[in-house]
Amino acid sequence: MKELKKGTISTPLGFKTNALWCGLKKKKFDLALIYSIVRARSAGVFTRNKVKAAPVELGIKNLKDNHAQAIIINSGNANCCTGKRGKEDALLITKLLAAQLKLKTKDVLMSSTGVIGKYLAKEKIISSLPELAGGLGFNNAHKTAQAIMTTDTFSKQVAVEIKIKNKPVTVAAVAKGAGMICPNMATMLCFVTTDANIEQAALKKALKTAVDASFNCISIDGQMSTNDSVIIMANGLAANAMIRENSRESGIFVQALKHVCLELAKMIIKDAEGATKFIEINIKGARNRKAANTAAMAIANSMLVKTMIAGNNPNWGRIPAALGAAGIDLDQEKMELSLQKKVVYKNAKPVLKDQLSLINSLKKKDINITVNLNNGSFEHTVFSSDLTVEYVKVNMAYN
Amino acid sequence: MKELKKGTISTPLGFKTNALWCGLKKKKFDLALIYSIVRARSAGVFTRNKVKAAPVELGIKNLKDNHAQAIIINSGNANCCTGKRGKEDALLITKLLAAQLKLKTKDVLMSSTGVIGKYLAKEKIISSLPELAGGLGFNNAHKTAQAIMTTDTFSKQVAVEIKIKNKPVTVAAVAKGAGMICPNMATMLCFVTTDANIEQAALKKALKTAVDASFNCISIDGQMSTNDSVIIMANGLAANAMIRENSRESGIFVQALKHVCLELAKMIIKDAEGATKFIEINIKGARNRKAANTAAMAIANSMLVKTMIAGNNPNWGRIPAALGAAGIDLDQEKMELSLQKKVVYKNAKPVLKDQLSLINSLKKKDINITVNLNNGSFEHTVFSSDLTVEYVKVNMAYN
Repeated sequence: MKELKKGTISTPLGFKTNALWCGLKKKKFDLALIYSIVRARSAGVFTRNKVKAAPVELGIKNLKDNHAQAIIINSGNANCCTGKRGKEDALLITKLLAAQLKLKTKDVLMSSTGVIGKYLAKEKIISSLPELAGGLGFNNAHKTAQAIMTTDTFSKQVAVEIKIKNKPVTVAAVAKGAGMICPNMATMLCFVTTDANIEQAALKKALKTAVDASFNCISIDGQMSTNDSVIIMANGLAANAMIRENSRESGIFVQALKHVCLELAKMIIKDAEGATKFIEINIKGARNRKAANTAAMAIANSMLVKTMIAGNNPNWGRIPAALGAAGIDLDQEKMELSLQKKVVYKNAKPVLKDQLSLINSLKKKDINITVNLNNGSFEHTVFSSDLTVEYVKVNMAYN
Repeated sequence: MKELKKGTISTPLGFKTNALWCGLKKKKFDLALIYSIVRARSAGVFTRNKVKAAPVELGIKNLKDNHAQAIIINSGNANCCTGKRGKEDALLITKLLAAQLKLKTKDVLMSSTGVIGKYLAKEKIISSLPELAGGLGFNNAHKTAQAIMTTDTFSKQVAVEIKIKNKPVTVAAVAKGAGMICPNMATMLCFVTTDANIEQAALKKALKTAVDASFNCISIDGQMSTNDSVIIMANGLAANAMIRENSRESGIFVQALKHVCLELAKMIIKDAEGATKFIEINIKGARNRKAANTAAMAIANSMLVKTMIAGNNPNWGRIPAALGAAGIDLDQEKMELSLQKKVVYKNAKPVLKDQLSLINSLKKKDINITVNLNNGSFEHTVFSSDLTVEYVKVNMAYN
């Protein structure tokens, strides 16, 4: 696998994009289009929030035939809690865009991100469709990456190249994050483009595996969004021999997709609202997979742990307190806890000698919390950010 | 039921207290003693955190015989994650205090609150025991209420008088809260004194009922503590006819105990770290009790809802987003949402007309969030606080 340093979602063969400002946000790109020059095998993973935005419901429907050719994305409005009218708005936009691009309506997907509970200013989008479609090109990926941002401070793109039976295949993706980030998944949108020729079952499985190992392993504030979507379009233009499920080649493809998604997930954490730290939480020795996940997320979402990290505060007792409240099987006499790889609690005893050295190591940007539950053999890692004054300020403000 | 305006835990007959500064905190009262002049029927409700402090484990053991006569409380150190030595320390202190007071060791309970993972400076406590026990009196309740505080900004006491078959009976309690507050329960300590003559089964049931309807209905930061304890001592000195389980009189007693606990629970929320708002969350129309509780707590613990309230921010979409992620049965088309009693979402539509008036009403200190899930007939109310810059600052700091 080769990382393509300046790769974008237009690096895989046959993907054009465009972005513009239609007026949903204040003088920032707010409308984007990703388009494959041929119809593409596609798959999606969507939020498990029971309150789902209109475009999410439409996307789930449109992906039933496992194909798509275009995705329109707006920021500035989530089109969520907007009932019948919200659904009609999303449908109308995809219909008009399909006409513009000469596609079937069902091959157009829509994603929205922004405020919940407000009707979409659909006229602004509709009147921009000719310009949006007309300007599609191979060199617009950077502005597309910007157009999907909300409170993100930098755009997020990754691309890699792999070889499938000696044919080069490219996998690329763009994402946005910033707040309301929690597994299953986050207000996060991610669009993956690839020119791989891959059968549907393998594509679906690869996406699920990659999302589980990346976007479902991060949490900023424990808040699952109503609009989370990861969509992949595989247009086959690399002309590689078809990647079949459970083959050696599907393994290579999964690795590439996982890598792309994990890099983006980490970027989302680094760009978390107000965050000053990147926290890696390793759980070891859990009785089962669920306990490992629950333990990791209990730490990742603890406001007291997150403020402690923000303050370079060595008050590690907040970590066992969060774990003990997580409802998992846990023996406080057996568990072992390290902060910045320094053991602080072991054999039912606080064992840290040099608190000053711990305080100093906590001043680093990268924080590691490792807990061995000594209860089994399951492991899990999640990534999280600290809780700062800035996070509160950003979220007190009404955008 | 009569509220006793200046009532304290020394208002019920036969309860002496004392408090002093032993040196665990910086020049603040940090050691307290509550003592009944006769052995009292007692009961306790303790944290369900699987990481339990040494004094909690000792308390559970000592209450197996359903009696106690004295409770010693220290602030400044939780004596948690301190293993064998922590247990020995707690036991030694109760033993020495028992000797001082001429009691059986098992009739002495201990509660601790403060930092986790540090050994108790037990010599400071031990050398203060003669003064602590020697100074017991009926007029020390106010300093006792202060001595159990951590980051609390005011002390919390409530007392009421009821009549049991024409005999006056008094129920009083003192509590501390401030942070790590979540049901089951919080870093909250509450000590209830009553001169009621009540049988053990009725006392236990009353305490559980009262705690469920009060301390288990509040959340500041979703963090369950390792040290939470609510302990009641009923010394019978009111000489009322024995209150029996399921009698009319036990109903009166439960009402009084509930009232005392709920008032203290609300005070804890009002004194939450950094809080500027008091949030009441009403869930209606839930399919079952668990769904009602889960829905209420999902809103109470949402960082995005809490920052929104801190900012007088009308971004109500964060409430359905938090509900949808709570894992309960929920139909976004049916649910109805009000903020400050103004309906904002109904019949799958945003219905708020006057956003300015909503913003203005959010500037009040008391906030009401009401959700009707229209899914059944269960209701639940919880109380919560906002998430402010000050909360983050308090918890970034190492105390």
